[in-house]
Amino acid sequence: MDDLIFVVGTGPGSISALTFDAKAALDKADTIVGYPVYTNLLKKDFPDKEYIETPMGSEIERCRLCFEESSKGKKVAIVSSGDAGVYGMASLIYEMSGDYPDTEIVTVPGLTAAITGAALLGAPLSNDFAVISLSDILTPKEKIEKRLRKAAEGDFTIVLYNPMSRKRRDNLRKACDIFLEYMEEDRICGWVENIGREGERKVYLSLKELRDADLTMFTTVFIGSSETVMKNGVMLTKRGYEKKE
Amino acid sequence: MDDLIFVVGTGPGSISALTFDAKAALDKADTIVGYPVYTNLLKKDFPDKEYIETPMGSEIERCRLCFEESSKGKKVAIVSSGDAGVYGMASLIYEMSGDYPDTEIVTVPGLTAAITGAALLGAPLSNDFAVISLSDILTPKEKIEKRLRKAAEGDFTIVLYNPMSRKRRDNLRKACDIFLEYMEEDRICGWVENIGREGERKVYLSLKELRDADLTMFTTVFIGSSETVMKNGVMLTKRGYEKKE
Repeated sequence: MDDLIFVVGTGPGSISALTFDAKAALDKADTIVGYPVYTNLLKKDFPDKEYIETPMGSEIERCRLCFEESSKGKKVAIVSSGDAGVYGMASLIYEMSGDYPDTEIVTVPGLTAAITGAALLGAPLSNDFAVISLSDILTPKEKIEKRLRKAAEGDFTIVLYNPMSRKRRDNLRKACDIFLEYMEEDRICGWVENIGREGERKVYLSLKELRDADLTMFTTVFIGSSETVMKNGVMLTKRGYEKKE
Repeated sequence: MDDLIFVVGTGPGSISALTFDAKAALDKADTIVGYPVYTNLLKKDFPDKEYIETPMGSEIERCRLCFEESSKGKKVAIVSSGDAGVYGMASLIYEMSGDYPDTEIVTVPGLTAAITGAALLGAPLSNDFAVISLSDILTPKEKIEKRLRKAAEGDFTIVLYNPMSRKRRDNLRKACDIFLEYMEEDRICGWVENIGREGERKVYLSLKELRDADLTMFTTVFIGSSETVMKNGVMLTKRGYEKKE
């Protein structure tokens, strides 16, 4: 095990939301590999690195590049925004690692948008929650729809990643229509955009309003459970301490 | 808004898993409030602070103390291990904040055990997942059981917090019995204990074996989805890139 790949979650965007472990991994790396939107956020603070940027959609090629650079003796960090384990590159790196038995993989966790978005909105995740991506590129629509229904039936707080994209503008509307079969129209919802980056924005709204919202792929959406309320200006899910004492 | 409370997630345990934002908040604080198991991990790196430690079970009192200290002009940081928004103190602080309109609340997110545990085990959360606490102190058993069933029906990867405690040793066994109605006995599972701290340990096992496991309250449990496999020595949920290309 001489070769080394760090799989690093870089959090929402700002360097201040990196962990010390993530900073240390990026400091050690010779080469940083990732999607340009996210590598661009690192260049100012990690200027003396070789950057390899590959577009979205070329994930297998991006991972293969990491193993190839690593086998040349370079320390490689492949970065995902948020956490590399949550819809990120960690899974694919591990899947391909069997072909490169001399490469050690070190995963360094980061703050995923469910966590950072919740902190911006208040405390919507203080009880059980489900995280679902609406992107149907890799998961069949029927499977996503089933998960939306089960999450609603289970009264989870629900976090939606990839609520819409330029090509798929109606995924969020369809998801809300499913939720409206189970929840009242004024169910507390919220969304956050560009967390920790320029253009950061948060909005509280009802499920009915969410159905018609026009969002981007940089948005994370929160659907409250039946125990989620707006209180003191924030969205929070009651944990239940007040019942106990 | 002169008074200030930081609600800080301190991550799994080691200082190196703090974010720079969390470190900055703790640096600014005069007083750090929390459960002693977690404040003890901070004392070496933040020695010149006043520490106020309250036992588990006295959450409302702990939050009230924060507001009282803050109104005396002290900068207060209330800490939760992991993330303060996930089964942590953020929700209760916001709920009580209406009584203290001069206090500004700043939540600083941290790495919750679902994220850090997943990184230790491999990449089990690379597709949709549900997070459920088995503690029935604040949530009725029937509600927990319903969520376990819906998460299983939805084929989520499932993360269990508080799988057992000294007083409630059979919660995990009951949860596994529910899962066994939906899943095969050899469903891939894993658990992690004392993440980032002395005694860190990870174990891969089948659902049948998990049913009889003897764990502590410092353990986080992962139940794979139907797409979770053991591959190249780790637990991973396939994201689906290999199907696409």
